[in-house]
Amino acid sequence: MGKLYVIGIGPGGLEHMSIRAKEAIEESDIVVGYTRYIEFVKPLLEGKRVFSTGMMGEEDRCKEALKLCKEGTVSVISTGDSGIYGMAGLILELRDDEEVEVIPGITASSAAGSIVGAPLMHDSCNISLSDLMTPYELIKKRVQLAAEGDFVISLYNPRSKGRADYLRENLAVIRKYRNGDTPVALVKNALRDGQEVTIATLDTFDCTKADMLSIVIIGNSQSYIKDGYFVTPRGYKL
Amino acid sequence: MGKLYVIGIGPGGLEHMSIRAKEAIEESDIVVGYTRYIEFVKPLLEGKRVFSTGMMGEEDRCKEALKLCKEGTVSVISTGDSGIYGMAGLILELRDDEEVEVIPGITASSAAGSIVGAPLMHDSCNISLSDLMTPYELIKKRVQLAAEGDFVISLYNPRSKGRADYLRENLAVIRKYRNGDTPVALVKNALRDGQEVTIATLDTFDCTKADMLSIVIIGNSQSYIKDGYFVTPRGYKL
Ligand SMILES: C[S@@+](CC[C@H](N)C(=O)[O-])C[C@H]1O[C@@H](n2cnc3c(N)ncnc32)[C@H](O)[C@@H]1O
Ligand SMILES: C[S@@+](CC[C@H](N)C(=O)[O-])C[C@H]1O[C@@H](n2cnc3c(N)ncnc32)[C@H](O)[C@@H]1O
Repeated sequence: MGKLYVIGIGPGGLEHMSIRAKEAIEESDIVVGYTRYIEFVKPLLEGKRVFSTGMMGEEDRCKEALKLCKEGTVSVISTGDSGIYGMAGLILELRDDEEVEVIPGITASSAAGSIVGAPLMHDSCNISLSDLMTPYELIKKRVQLAAEGDFVISLYNPRSKGRADYLRENLAVIRKYRNGDTPVALVKNALRDGQEVTIATLDTFDCTKADMLSIVIIGNSQSYIKDGYFVTPRGYKL
Repeated sequence: MGKLYVIGIGPGGLEHMSIRAKEAIEESDIVVGYTRYIEFVKPLLEGKRVFSTGMMGEEDRCKEALKLCKEGTVSVISTGDSGIYGMAGLILELRDDEEVEVIPGITASSAAGSIVGAPLMHDSCNISLSDLMTPYELIKKRVQLAAEGDFVISLYNPRSKGRADYLRENLAVIRKYRNGDTPVALVKNALRDGQEVTIATLDTFDCTKADMLSIVIIGNSQSYIKDGYFVTPRGYKL
């Protein structure tokens, strides 16, 4: 029986993958992932069996990976960190007696943060605005509590056609607790082809730019823009 | 004038560094960092100038790096992600006209999460228990709001001699909102030499095991332990 690696490939560009993640893919006989993410690691796939499915096939993909690892070493890939809204949880929930190793990656908030400056230097939250599996009331409650606690907030899955208004609604909740000039960054395709960056404020931010390929980071009450960089101070007296 | 890279080297072991981070260090003439972290990248340092200082020298280290990059390409290194309680913020705060590029890394919560399973699969917070630059009242307020919001909570800097009781006090705050059997993981030296892992519950967790080389992750109300893995379900109906 082979081994099953659950791999976070980082934001997308091969050079932001960890050395360990790259080696585990190279060592695998079979690679399983969402079609779009398989593209990101294409240069590593020569001579391997590839099993890819569309966006809604997460559960099938995991079941297939658990079956396939009886035939050889398998890598299941997620973008970012496989343990953050990725495949690691589902694999472990469905796992029976297969040998599983989770290999971490650079998550989208870190990737996007590095591009815009250093927004995540103080206490922060990751919240997904996707209500496919989380009641929207709970999502809004979390955003409100995170705003009240003056956390830097990274919004994953910020906007899709089916819930075009959630981002606007949640930024309005945050606005109740923060000034209008609080920095807001939107990064689409962070550290991969098609990267687009917008830095605005709570009052000027244009929600319609966001989509499922972007992440939105909202600063805390101390965050500011300096020479185009979005910085949240750690608290040094300078 | 040279370039200044601010690099997150990941949890410590070289293999969990990104390919880009490794290349940037290799390309540098000078490497600046806390003495302990310099050790982690030693194999990459041959023929380079190294400027290292003890724990309290963060500001001096950044100033020195900004000065040195007039002489050549400089890498300032942090463990984990340099943008999460790392050096990226201070460098950008102190920066004048130097060319700075932040290169992200795998942060401690992702590293520790991968070792214990998949605790970060749902909305989560990073909170530092260090009160060197944050009032303790604000730290406790954030912990309370994160607990109320049913966030998975990663506690950075969980315990040091000067504040031996903070961890216990904050877990007691969380306990008010969560069951006693909520999983709690402590990972010391995640993915580097000296790794130690403890998985317990809010009721059985022994705070005295924690120190500044460890991170503590507390599950949300849905988290559970399965075959020794700490899993927070994403919400699939299985
Ligand atoms: C299902 S989640 C997967 C998160 C991923 N496992 C991670 O740790 O980054 C998908 C969401 O992650 C964010 N995301 C992932 N990669 C991104 C990138 N390179 N740039 C911007 N956002 C990204 C987007 O918000 C997207 O809607
Ligand atoms: C000043 S913070 C730096 C965080 C780092 N920039 C990151 O993103 O992981 C130091 C704290 O990070 C956590 N930490 C960093 N690396 C770790 C590792 N390999 N294992 C466990 N905890 C770690 C510990 O909580 C430690 O007290």
